[in-house]
Amino acid sequence: MASEGLQEQIKLQGDFVRKLKAAKENKDRIEEEVAKLLELKAQLNDSQSVAQKFTLKTPKGTRDFSPQQMAIRSSVMNKIMSVFKKHGAETIDTPVFELKEVLTGKYGEDSKLIYDLKDQGGEILSLRYDLTVPFARYLAMNKITNIKRYHIAKVYRRDNPSITRGRYREFYQCDFDIAGTYDPMIPDAECIRIVYEILSILELKPFTLKVNHRLLLDGMLETCGVPADKFRSICSAVDKLDKSPWDEVKKEMIEEKGLTEDVANRIGEYVQLNGGRQLVDKLLEDSELIKSKSAVQGLEAIKLLLEYCELLGTLDAVSFDLSLARGLDYYTGVIYEAVLIGKDSKEGDDISVGSVAGGGRYDNLVGMFDSKNKNVPCVGVSIGIERIFAVLEGKLAASNKKIRTNEVQVFVATAQKNLVGERMKLCRELWDEGFKVEHSYKKNPKLLVQLQHCEEYDIPLAVIIGESELQKNVVKLREVPTRTEVEVSRSDLIMEINRRLKNLMSNGAS
Amino acid sequence: MASEGLQEQIKLQGDFVRKLKAAKENKDRIEEEVAKLLELKAQLNDSQSVAQKFTLKTPKGTRDFSPQQMAIRSSVMNKIMSVFKKHGAETIDTPVFELKEVLTGKYGEDSKLIYDLKDQGGEILSLRYDLTVPFARYLAMNKITNIKRYHIAKVYRRDNPSITRGRYREFYQCDFDIAGTYDPMIPDAECIRIVYEILSILELKPFTLKVNHRLLLDGMLETCGVPADKFRSICSAVDKLDKSPWDEVKKEMIEEKGLTEDVANRIGEYVQLNGGRQLVDKLLEDSELIKSKSAVQGLEAIKLLLEYCELLGTLDAVSFDLSLARGLDYYTGVIYEAVLIGKDSKEGDDISVGSVAGGGRYDNLVGMFDSKNKNVPCVGVSIGIERIFAVLEGKLAASNKKIRTNEVQVFVATAQKNLVGERMKLCRELWDEGFKVEHSYKKNPKLLVQLQHCEEYDIPLAVIIGESELQKNVVKLREVPTRTEVEVSRSDLIMEINRRLKNLMSNGAS
Repeated sequence: MASEGLQEQIKLQGDFVRKLKAAKENKDRIEEEVAKLLELKAQLNDSQSVAQKFTLKTPKGTRDFSPQQMAIRSSVMNKIMSVFKKHGAETIDTPVFELKEVLTGKYGEDSKLIYDLKDQGGEILSLRYDLTVPFARYLAMNKITNIKRYHIAKVYRRDNPSITRGRYREFYQCDFDIAGTYDPMIPDAECIRIVYEILSILELKPFTLKVNHRLLLDGMLETCGVPADKFRSICSAVDKLDKSPWDEVKKEMIEEKGLTEDVANRIGEYVQLNGGRQLVDKLLEDSELIKSKSAVQGLEAIKLLLEYCELLGTLDAVSFDLSLARGLDYYTGVIYEAVLIGKDSKEGDDISVGSVAGGGRYDNLVGMFDSKNKNVPCVGVSIGIERIFAVLEGKLAASNKKIRTNEVQVFVATAQKNLVGERMKLCRELWDEGFKVEHSYKKNPKLLVQLQHCEEYDIPLAVIIGESELQKNVVKLREVPTRTEVEVSRSDLIMEINRRLKNLMSNGAS
Repeated sequence: MASEGLQEQIKLQGDFVRKLKAAKENKDRIEEEVAKLLELKAQLNDSQSVAQKFTLKTPKGTRDFSPQQMAIRSSVMNKIMSVFKKHGAETIDTPVFELKEVLTGKYGEDSKLIYDLKDQGGEILSLRYDLTVPFARYLAMNKITNIKRYHIAKVYRRDNPSITRGRYREFYQCDFDIAGTYDPMIPDAECIRIVYEILSILELKPFTLKVNHRLLLDGMLETCGVPADKFRSICSAVDKLDKSPWDEVKKEMIEEKGLTEDVANRIGEYVQLNGGRQLVDKLLEDSELIKSKSAVQGLEAIKLLLEYCELLGTLDAVSFDLSLARGLDYYTGVIYEAVLIGKDSKEGDDISVGSVAGGGRYDNLVGMFDSKNKNVPCVGVSIGIERIFAVLEGKLAASNKKIRTNEVQVFVATAQKNLVGERMKLCRELWDEGFKVEHSYKKNPKLLVQLQHCEEYDIPLAVIIGESELQKNVVKLREVPTRTEVEVSRSDLIMEINRRLKNLMSNGAS
């Protein structure tokens, strides 16, 4: 290998230099040989880095985010956080990995999707799969019995990435949960209000907030004659109704899950129902259904929930939907899911964005971590932020709107050479005043290039310094959008910038 | 095992229920048996979760952050981000893991601290060790030749955690870098200005910004007679001067690194120097030193840097320090480090917080990822945010100040029973107006408990509804800090809340 030859040469040259120095040889001579040595070392570095070449990519199912994408993401996350804060939520953080045992037995079949860390000695660790299990671990570990918290962070699933459907192996979750022993449906109704506010603030109307109840689902299946040990697997078939027509789901129930046609038909009559309070009342008069205690409990709960939704102003978007089942085993009460309605603006095409938020009540998860099985009742919602990003990125692309990736207010430019010092002095003055300012990192940049930069980045104001301006103690102040320039005295500059920024802001051109 | 017995019982009971249903038995009878089945299943879940008990902890070297800690962290991060944005930075994000090859050969000895993911089929992955290498990978992969970006995210090192010294295995890095071919020292001086602004805004004065230059270090070592192949190892000995006295470092140089006493003494004369522009001028007159071209190049660079620092208003905190060496191999030009000066306020004790920020120029890293070795010159700074958190948490604890963990402005309380609906209606009204509002999730909470909650969470205003208030169409508005109450008509409520919040804000009691 070339690098081995080089290493040998370097060793020899190093020895040679050392000998010269030991012999207190002439300095110039030593310096010459040191330079050769450094040159050889540089070659070695180069050859080694060439040897390191490989396909540059991010891991499968993951991606980088560019400044443009980050600008959208930050703006969306800030809006979502503002709603969580509006409802008094605190935030916590947990490590990105957990002891593997913490995750074991919480996700059923999906456990195979958990990323494990290599055993490098010490503890056996896995990357978190969601934020709910770490939250439950946090509550149990710290003996916290009530908290209202949000958590926005990345989670990891070794899923088969479907980029078109917005499914990744690394993605954000954005959770809000209320833990504590409270009265029925009060925190539950607030979770729904939060989803309602978030989708409204993100201008994702129209949407539907589907609600159902685990006890009602169980009671309904019982009434239809489904054996109790098939409840969960039939639920997961029902859960497919948002993507598949009833006929297909029915076929699965009969052929794969072993129901009789009669039983499947009875389920079909129920799960195709959705509506509001009238539907609850109608079902409370269903003489078959109300033989099931759990069905009645579920219906009474939904009735109360809808009452609270009316008081909180969300009822217009809420749909009581008997087909809503949701996959996760740990739900014990209300479940809900938000779906966007209608077409994407892009080319009038229908895009199936599916569910953009979902959640429910899980009263027994914390107990799984407590040594005395002490439970902390919880209800929460997870915002499907990656799908929302995809929808909003699409909308933005369709609208041809630009999104700013930095927040610079003033660009300090120079019109002639050798003014970098003057530029820096002015930048300093403006930074000290709190403005967001940048200038070129070239010593003598062309004015045109500087002004083009302002237009490219939508920087509203440019301050231009030239020699004549310096003599007169003025600057040129340029409004970038209109390309108009005025002369402003240095003593008025701060005031004038403030005034124009305010104007530009109120014209919506910040 | 108990759970096996239960599973058998469940199977039998399930079969029994199915038989009853197949026989179209009396509904009540079936329901009774289904209930028994569900009870058995619940027992099984309990017994299984008991079997899952283990020590509840976070992985070694990691921790959860409570709402109190998160409130401090968010506030610090927001301040740091505001400075980055003030200088026109955009932000990007990269995955938490990279192909292992990306990290290979970048961290020297420290490579052993990299966390690897288990090979579960597919790519071989490692958790990121810092944000600089992923940044360089991002630039090379996307052929980006100039960008000014910040990135705040977690990195991972399988280090031996020293909690007292604030070293963890999962911690935040907070990086700002300027990539692009620009003129000497202009972006470098801005990085120093950014550190200056950040430490000022975080009220961490007094601090010193040490600067040095890799070329000067090399030239200085050359002048002293250090063999070129020992430059890096002698540098890493010099780097210890911030923690160890010169005598110890000298001993290491002689006994471990094989320098003669004479050579070590000559190094000692240089590395104990620090100062400002006079020192640069003095060294430029050092007839030995200036025989080294690289020493002269380094000195000229520092001279220009100090000139720019004066223009940018940071010179008072900058110290040209020949003992600053910094560990990382990839630096090629200016290096710098910020150290806090003085005692911690806590008990008057000295706390060694060491370096709270550091960085430098690395012009060859991006080229290591480019197939044609095309370089993108970079200079950047990393804010040691975990150490800063530790210092600020200590200060806060010492000051006995409370930090709010939520931002609620108005708590809606009820004075009698059965008013939960009225509470919800008012909450809705206030949320619709944009206020941050919460209420109790109990149906009939005690008034005292509600008011205690307000005091505990420093919520400034409480609106109290009682039956008599409802009849008169008024509410009681309570200022929590002063415990004063006034009656306000419902139609004036919004205006009155706005007015009082503004007052409380200007009194600094938000």
